[in-house]
Amino acid sequence: MKVVLLSGGGGGARFARGLADTLPAGDLTIVGNVGDDLEILGVHVSPDLDSLLYTLAGLIDDERGWGRAGETWNALASAGSWGGDDWFRLGDLDIGLHLVRTELLRADVPLSEVTARLVEKTGLSSRILPATNDRLRTHVHTTAGEFPFQEWFVRRAHEDDVDDVRYEGADDARPAPGVLQALVDAGAILIAPSNPYLSIGPILAVSEIRRALESRRARCVAVSPLVGGKAVSGPLDRMLSRMAGGTSPAHVTDCYLGLIDALVIDEADAPAEADIQLAVTRTLMDDRDAARRLAERTLEVACG
Amino acid sequence: MKVVLLSGGGGGARFARGLADTLPAGDLTIVGNVGDDLEILGVHVSPDLDSLLYTLAGLIDDERGWGRAGETWNALASAGSWGGDDWFRLGDLDIGLHLVRTELLRADVPLSEVTARLVEKTGLSSRILPATNDRLRTHVHTTAGEFPFQEWFVRRAHEDDVDDVRYEGADDARPAPGVLQALVDAGAILIAPSNPYLSIGPILAVSEIRRALESRRARCVAVSPLVGGKAVSGPLDRMLSRMAGGTSPAHVTDCYLGLIDALVIDEADAPAEADIQLAVTRTLMDDRDAARRLAERTLEVACG
Repeated sequence: MKVVLLSGGGGGARFARGLADTLPAGDLTIVGNVGDDLEILGVHVSPDLDSLLYTLAGLIDDERGWGRAGETWNALASAGSWGGDDWFRLGDLDIGLHLVRTELLRADVPLSEVTARLVEKTGLSSRILPATNDRLRTHVHTTAGEFPFQEWFVRRAHEDDVDDVRYEGADDARPAPGVLQALVDAGAILIAPSNPYLSIGPILAVSEIRRALESRRARCVAVSPLVGGKAVSGPLDRMLSRMAGGTSPAHVTDCYLGLIDALVIDEADAPAEADIQLAVTRTLMDDRDAARRLAERTLEVACG
Repeated sequence: MKVVLLSGGGGGARFARGLADTLPAGDLTIVGNVGDDLEILGVHVSPDLDSLLYTLAGLIDDERGWGRAGETWNALASAGSWGGDDWFRLGDLDIGLHLVRTELLRADVPLSEVTARLVEKTGLSSRILPATNDRLRTHVHTTAGEFPFQEWFVRRAHEDDVDDVRYEGADDARPAPGVLQALVDAGAILIAPSNPYLSIGPILAVSEIRRALESRRARCVAVSPLVGGKAVSGPLDRMLSRMAGGTSPAHVTDCYLGLIDALVIDEADAPAEADIQLAVTRTLMDDRDAARRLAERTLEVACG
């Protein structure tokens, strides 16, 4: 059974690895968020695509949760000393990938093709597709003003409360080649335990992807990114409280109205009620086995 | 007395440091070769400008003779693993500078302004000017075909014999802002012990710079890059033998016909004859003191 996962980085990437560990080779297509992408120091960085790539290829720094294991930081320190931006943490190993990606993009190779080449280098059997090859950037409206995503998330340490999220370029963005076909072919569509506003929102902001989900034949199941109403990491609980009025499972399902058939929630959030099916399990992915168990349970829910 | 030095990297950069150690602050302007520049992994590298900058700022790896001391190579190894070019050795600290330079160049800041900003960051009192802000690239015609400079020099380890050198873009290249004025204001013009074909040739290929030297009022003195008819490093002796017919001081002065008033040669190359004044001293720059003594001696010759 072909499976499509919509995902950000972080917990989404760990869930993706759980799925890859569960499914037969070649059955998993991951559609990754590009709303966090940025150009910095002249290189194009795709944090979520890279987290997916690094996590699935076993290159991720598991402790830190992003970037490469065994990373060094000399190029960034040097760039800073020469007057370059150094607030966005790019390690040397990471920069090596960004240089290769940026050179290809400047030669008009689309991001989906660049990503496919990188995946191929790792020998992974899963596909990673950017939601779109077009420029799509998340901006947050906060109590301190509007900021491009990374300016707020990294540079301002996501301290300002968010009132609204805007996806610049979404109106004109087309799905990357392969995305719509994968959604049509899928026996199950899954939404990773990622931030609905910041990681999944930019994917669903591509209108053809949203419509494909609305008219899906396969079941679509999301995994809640909350445990006991709290985000495992990041600002989601604060955002949900402020923007949706609470952090219960129903507040999560409201983010995906008409798009999902079930939500997998943590034991700590049960019992709960929502307009769609809620499936209860342990969702915390302490290790790779836990991620695989969550993936198996989510696939069971998707298979009805 | 204001002094202008035309220079490549390597020995030229060591000589430049000797001059900077000798002259009062602010009196030295270095016009650096850009014929070796290349775009690789999407970044703009200016090897000679960087060798000058690193050497004067005390950042150079003295043992290796190029690049930064304490360098690491993780970004390049990573880029190679993702399918990027890794034949041109770029260290992590070095890449930090290239990222900053490339970002500025893409924002249409001219190379001379970029270089000035980098020099300013080091607190150096010497000026470093690229010969030109325009695209000028050295190509070599060899027994194995024509190659862009770095393809031959680094990738092919300069093994092929050179029959001719071509400076792509030279016809349209204008001197960078400040270069002509510096030559007019100079009390002495010096040519570093750099390769006449590969390091000084591209500078003199900018017709306005050549004409400024031809019509100079100040004396112009070159330092021979040969010791006992041999290049201290690099392919110069092979090139001179093949292209000029020998490696005597007169073969060097022939490279600068009408442009220099004297040539400083090593004791190992004396006695010798040429159509212009030959001044004999120890030219090998084993250490910083030796470079300073060579600079002092060269300035004496320039002052007649």
